[in-house]
Amino acid sequence: MSYRGRAKEFLKSQNISIGDIISIKKDDTEYMGMLLDRAEDADELHIVLKMDSGYNVGIALTGSEVKLLEKGDKPEINLPLLEIKRDPEKMDVSIISTGGTVASIIDYKTGAVHPAFTADDLLRATPELLDEANISGKAIMNILSENMKPEFWVQSARAVADEITEGADGVVVAHGTDTMHYTAAALSFILETPVPIIVTGAQRSSDRPSSDAFINLMSSVAMAKSDIAEVTVCMHATENDNQAHIHRGTRVRKMHTSRRDTFNSINSPPLASVKDGRVKIIDKTFTPRKRGECQLDVNDSLEEKVGFIKSYPGIAAELLDYHIDNGYRGILMEGTGLGHCPDHLIPSLERAADEEIPVVMTSQCLYGRTNLNVYSTGRKILSSGVISVGDMLAETAYVKLVWALGQTNQLEEVKTIMQTNLKGEMDEKSSSKYFLRDYGE
Amino acid sequence: MSYRGRAKEFLKSQNISIGDIISIKKDDTEYMGMLLDRAEDADELHIVLKMDSGYNVGIALTGSEVKLLEKGDKPEINLPLLEIKRDPEKMDVSIISTGGTVASIIDYKTGAVHPAFTADDLLRATPELLDEANISGKAIMNILSENMKPEFWVQSARAVADEITEGADGVVVAHGTDTMHYTAAALSFILETPVPIIVTGAQRSSDRPSSDAFINLMSSVAMAKSDIAEVTVCMHATENDNQAHIHRGTRVRKMHTSRRDTFNSINSPPLASVKDGRVKIIDKTFTPRKRGECQLDVNDSLEEKVGFIKSYPGIAAELLDYHIDNGYRGILMEGTGLGHCPDHLIPSLERAADEEIPVVMTSQCLYGRTNLNVYSTGRKILSSGVISVGDMLAETAYVKLVWALGQTNQLEEVKTIMQTNLKGEMDEKSSSKYFLRDYGE
Repeated sequence: MSYRGRAKEFLKSQNISIGDIISIKKDDTEYMGMLLDRAEDADELHIVLKMDSGYNVGIALTGSEVKLLEKGDKPEINLPLLEIKRDPEKMDVSIISTGGTVASIIDYKTGAVHPAFTADDLLRATPELLDEANISGKAIMNILSENMKPEFWVQSARAVADEITEGADGVVVAHGTDTMHYTAAALSFILETPVPIIVTGAQRSSDRPSSDAFINLMSSVAMAKSDIAEVTVCMHATENDNQAHIHRGTRVRKMHTSRRDTFNSINSPPLASVKDGRVKIIDKTFTPRKRGECQLDVNDSLEEKVGFIKSYPGIAAELLDYHIDNGYRGILMEGTGLGHCPDHLIPSLERAADEEIPVVMTSQCLYGRTNLNVYSTGRKILSSGVISVGDMLAETAYVKLVWALGQTNQLEEVKTIMQTNLKGEMDEKSSSKYFLRDYGE
Repeated sequence: MSYRGRAKEFLKSQNISIGDIISIKKDDTEYMGMLLDRAEDADELHIVLKMDSGYNVGIALTGSEVKLLEKGDKPEINLPLLEIKRDPEKMDVSIISTGGTVASIIDYKTGAVHPAFTADDLLRATPELLDEANISGKAIMNILSENMKPEFWVQSARAVADEITEGADGVVVAHGTDTMHYTAAALSFILETPVPIIVTGAQRSSDRPSSDAFINLMSSVAMAKSDIAEVTVCMHATENDNQAHIHRGTRVRKMHTSRRDTFNSINSPPLASVKDGRVKIIDKTFTPRKRGECQLDVNDSLEEKVGFIKSYPGIAAELLDYHIDNGYRGILMEGTGLGHCPDHLIPSLERAADEEIPVVMTSQCLYGRTNLNVYSTGRKILSSGVISVGDMLAETAYVKLVWALGQTNQLEEVKTIMQTNLKGEMDEKSSSKYFLRDYGE
């Protein structure tokens, strides 16, 4: 096992091994659960228990009273999960790990969190997943999601496609939460999928008592077994630990730095909820693609040279010129209100149009839709060639522009792609009733 | 009067003047109300009624049956409002107009909206304001708020200060909604105020039936008479037309492109509500400054050369370098999650620090607070000298940085200013219970 120093000696002296059921009394509280393995760089004081609640808890041995309750049947070194016997009655779900908190451990010495676990480790920490489906795990990269780049979207999409080709009935992508919505949008546009693809993560790492990794993974696997062959995001629905929401991959955004219910559908209700393994549709206006309705297809040509500019009161036209002068092939703007920017930017917007560089306008309000026909500034912006994309999220529109420019270099075709609803990312009709958490119910 | 052509002839033939009570029947609907003046550039077909509900409605004469019910006592050309007799029993409230929808009219020919009315026009359209206070109006500029620049914040602040110096018991600033929150934050930092200052606007122009201008103005005047000497934003509380919310000027953001309840307090509840002219405190954790508690003071030195960069998966370090190379004196970053950016930006962040250019980190999640101590990327960013500002909104932090750099050119002092709560813009303690519209009540 990976416990070292004092922890290792202590466990050895008590004849306690990984997988054993033990109790730890500390400060009037008793913790009971299965001893889990610790990560390589852990300190010598803490041991980790998996409790019945599904939570993992790390406890310092100092001042603790530890009792062995029951010897487990797990070997100290877990076998690779792929050797777990496949149950032909169960569906096959693949979990692909890209890194992030869902796959990370706390370093108790510094208090910082960094990515560590592999997908197999996830399974070791959450063996309950194996009751739900035949699970196979694969770690394809190990990065915090703030470091995600478009090229990693392609890597992830190809890994997902490989799993589908190899027979997976559903694929779960474990991902850091910072840019999870960008990746979910990218997978939405890159992949035509005959099976559910669910991107999930955790706001608290899986060895912390408040970790959301367990419910998020369990709910993702339930969704992976469903009939909804869309790219979705699965995360906590509320601050409670009893249900998850399923969001369209093109309609979702991280809205809180730390809450577990941080992901919210914008301009639409969540697609569905998952409670006790049951998937229940919430958004009855959206018709999701069904399992097997289309063939697997991968369109992973991207144009990475796309700028992302937020309009603000002191913005200089030179910022747009900088992008034009430096080979950017497209620009995503987050305008104010209905999709505005100061009118001193208009000559630079016209320059972009002259040089066949699409400028796509979204709104920094987040909710609602761009409409450049209402105000005089908007009309001027529109006639300078800017592409208005209605109720599409800025982050989704950025990803879509990166993808659209990979599909064609014709400005008019880019415009058509941007203004056509491909993956539920935009709606023709007003969605102003979906605001904050008011779904107009 | 400003009616022209057919409308003018028709009204003349019926002996109808501005201020008269008339009824218009059209398509089985009867409208009853006072004839209002039309703006200069209106077409020749529509006339505008002020109805009992407080709404103004524009109706085409074609196919309408018009009846004069009662001659009004208003002269055709309204006298300047300052000549209205001052009631010594009432408080003095000044309304300053900067333009925007609250002060705009629809051009029926094109369907577009552009700024037109002066503050006096506002009063003519909403004479009810005169029952509440001695109102004086002044139009200091006439621009759509997407064209606002830091120099206009200074102009607005000085105009507000002049009103206070001249004895106003409260000042209302009519403003376009696109960048209203930026201006409210700017006034918060620039002004020390002994009286309430309320920034308000409208999502629908005041001659449309669904205009929110009436309730927003009436509620703003009620707030201007209150004891709360803070810079606040007053806008519709819900989609209903019966109450407004008062938000701290540093805690508020436009969250919907078109809804009338678009402005929401972020990371805090609204400060108060106004219903039927009564101000009721909602946020009991915040202690607002009271009327007369401080002397008027204007600190309007600003540094306009501040960049605003949103982190995104394809962001290039060269974008930071561009700002450093082009004389930007500060950079506001909207990071992902807890305040992250890709780690390939770190050398450029260090370069900014070397050149004494403060880089301030906020979160594009909007809700929650930056915390660069949790993840390894965050720690690296922090040690490169980035200034983390907790739960401060990105827009507010941008305005504060523009202001802080006007107060000092010492990097350490800027850091201290940015990390000190000056105008309710940040809280030490966690505010994670305020999420979307859940105020933890």
